Amino acid sequence: MARLGAEVKVDDAGNLRGIYPGAESNAPRVIMGSHLDTVPNAGAYDGVLGVVLAIALLEALEGRHLPFGIEVVGFSEEEGVRFGVPFIGSRAVTGRLDEELLQRQDARGISVQRAIEDFGLNPEEIPLAVLTDGVLGYVEFHIEQGPVLETLKRPLGVIETIAGQSRMELTVLGRTNHAGTTPMHLRHDAIAGAAEWIVAVEREARSVPGLVATVGRIEATPGATNVIAGEARLTLDVRHESDEVRARAVETLIRQADEIAKRRGLSVRQKTLLNQRAVAMNSFLVDEIERAISKTGCEPHRMVSGAGHDAMILAEKVPAAMIFLRTPGGISHDPAESVRVDDVAKAIECGLHLLDQLAASTTFQKRICRA
Amino acid sequence: MARLGAEVKVDDAGNLRGIYPGAESNAPRVIMGSHLDTVPNAGAYDGVLGVVLAIALLEALEGRHLPFGIEVVGFSEEEGVRFGVPFIGSRAVTGRLDEELLQRQDARGISVQRAIEDFGLNPEEIPLAVLTDGVLGYVEFHIEQGPVLETLKRPLGVIETIAGQSRMELTVLGRTNHAGTTPMHLRHDAIAGAAEWIVAVEREARSVPGLVATVGRIEATPGATNVIAGEARLTLDVRHESDEVRARAVETLIRQADEIAKRRGLSVRQKTLLNQRAVAMNSFLVDEIERAISKTGCEPHRMVSGAGHDAMILAEKVPAAMIFLRTPGGISHDPAESVRVDDVAKAIECGLHLLDQLAASTTFQKRICRA
Repeated sequence: MARLGAEVKVDDAGNLRGIYPGAESNAPRVIMGSHLDTVPNAGAYDGVLGVVLAIALLEALEGRHLPFGIEVVGFSEEEGVRFGVPFIGSRAVTGRLDEELLQRQDARGISVQRAIEDFGLNPEEIPLAVLTDGVLGYVEFHIEQGPVLETLKRPLGVIETIAGQSRMELTVLGRTNHAGTTPMHLRHDAIAGAAEWIVAVEREARSVPGLVATVGRIEATPGATNVIAGEARLTLDVRHESDEVRARAVETLIRQADEIAKRRGLSVRQKTLLNQRAVAMNSFLVDEIERAISKTGCEPHRMVSGAGHDAMILAEKVPAAMIFLRTPGGISHDPAESVRVDDVAKAIECGLHLLDQLAASTTFQKRICRA
Repeated sequence: MARLGAEVKVDDAGNLRGIYPGAESNAPRVIMGSHLDTVPNAGAYDGVLGVVLAIALLEALEGRHLPFGIEVVGFSEEEGVRFGVPFIGSRAVTGRLDEELLQRQDARGISVQRAIEDFGLNPEEIPLAVLTDGVLGYVEFHIEQGPVLETLKRPLGVIETIAGQSRMELTVLGRTNHAGTTPMHLRHDAIAGAAEWIVAVEREARSVPGLVATVGRIEATPGATNVIAGEARLTLDVRHESDEVRARAVETLIRQADEIAKRRGLSVRQKTLLNQRAVAMNSFLVDEIERAISKTGCEPHRMVSGAGHDAMILAEKVPAAMIFLRTPGGISHDPAESVRVDDVAKAIECGLHLLDQLAASTTFQKRICRA
């Protein structure tokens, strides 16, 4: 970035930031980037590709300066693996890295604050990482991490909404009994009840367009071959672009769990782990991205992001938008994660068209965000 | 037992044995008893009640001697908890405690042979524990460990057959994927496939009279709230009095697993853990026990034992039969395991009637088993 004429620093939340200046001093700026961290046993593209693409765009400008500057941000911690809370970098940039989060500890008892200090940064200066005046918007490239674009044979997609999420933990309580001596009609089998509900979860999700619902974890006790399980613990993850649809689905699924339990002489306890609203991307930027994708000769696809991204956090403060790159096999968070070189070329081309469109739009440049 | 006039010893497989003599020396004998061991966190009645009831019968004879002696056996190891193989005591008595079993080790690496030595016994003398000539049969009292007699409001039941068992382990293989970014129709969810099959297992078992089928263990990987499971491992336990019905049921369930997997783009691997044939109890003894129960004023109930018992092992060598006592709540292998005092009184009464019936039956006394 320095070689391309950007002023580079690492802020005190560990975000790598480079400002490529606009044509005039005091010009507003567009933020572009993604995250630098990933998960254990990951691939090479999740997050970092979005940072590299932003830098590639600076390079592709070949020294040209636009009516706005471009700030490239490589967010320091998005996945939430170490401290169990995602988006630490983008929270810092939007002023949401609070004292409680700073005191949160990892598995070895090291706090976020201490980790920042150990990295040679000063947590007291985190407030200086917060976005200042003059930001026009945020644009993030990211691999899709899903199979939709590949199935449609389209290299690029534009995100209209980042789906809201509900996560919960359910415990089905039955009665532990001998698998040989308890006739079928006298059982209160927690695994069988849980299984009936899992089938219902899938049926419900399939019946509502755009809804995804997943039971990703199941454990039962005592967990012996010859013992009817007295308890099954499972998780539910529900996502949809509409918060109303999602809330209704969760309600339906809980009611179905209760009905199944009642009929089987079981009981169900539930605990909400997460309730996160859907976040709409900025419609002006979405339209412009769609136009830019079309200019590359690709058919654009408007889509919902089922995963959370830094753009979701940035959207609280500035107009935000995302461009997805096709992910071969939909494989992500895995060493087999990949992208196609020609899709990356299309992404750079799309980004340049977008920057030119925004450079030509006085409407866009007038809507400067105030801190 | 010694106080009641029995000759008591511990054989070299650790079985406690007391012989209460018959009216004449050289009289044949009836074996009565059950096992002395139980499972961790168990109740007070599983096994040991059958031994105590046999001793109570000697006491109830009040010094009377029958045309046959009574050998009370408290089998040393029936549950198989420590070495993973059940019926060690009764295997010794029937000559089936072989060298391979003697070399089997517990979790700390101690072999059966070593455990026997550490207890102060001599494994080389185990062949002397084998039943000698002159045995007429084996009768075992045991708690039902299930809810059938309680549901029927009957204190005592007579076992016609000890059900055969099939146990297997299934692995459902799908594809790990992001729970947020993978639409429902593009998933290969191992948990959802397993759940559909568990529901099918239950449906099949409910549709075949007397069949029980249980999935007692389920685990899935990676097992995260927000990840579609790529693998689910589960167990199947199938029991029925008819080996043919059981084999057909297992075949049907495996076929259904394959069909479900095929439709969902999953695959299934299976591994047989156990295949144990059903064992019929001696029909003469079953009829006599039924008559003895009737004489106590109770309605007898002919039933299948879904659990394995020492009687199953003894039945290979001598006519064997079992009497079940009602188990409150069907609760067993649990500190809450119990029996009703009046049911125990009925069991003693039934046992006395049975002994008197057998004492009066010259047919029975003629069928002496040869070693």
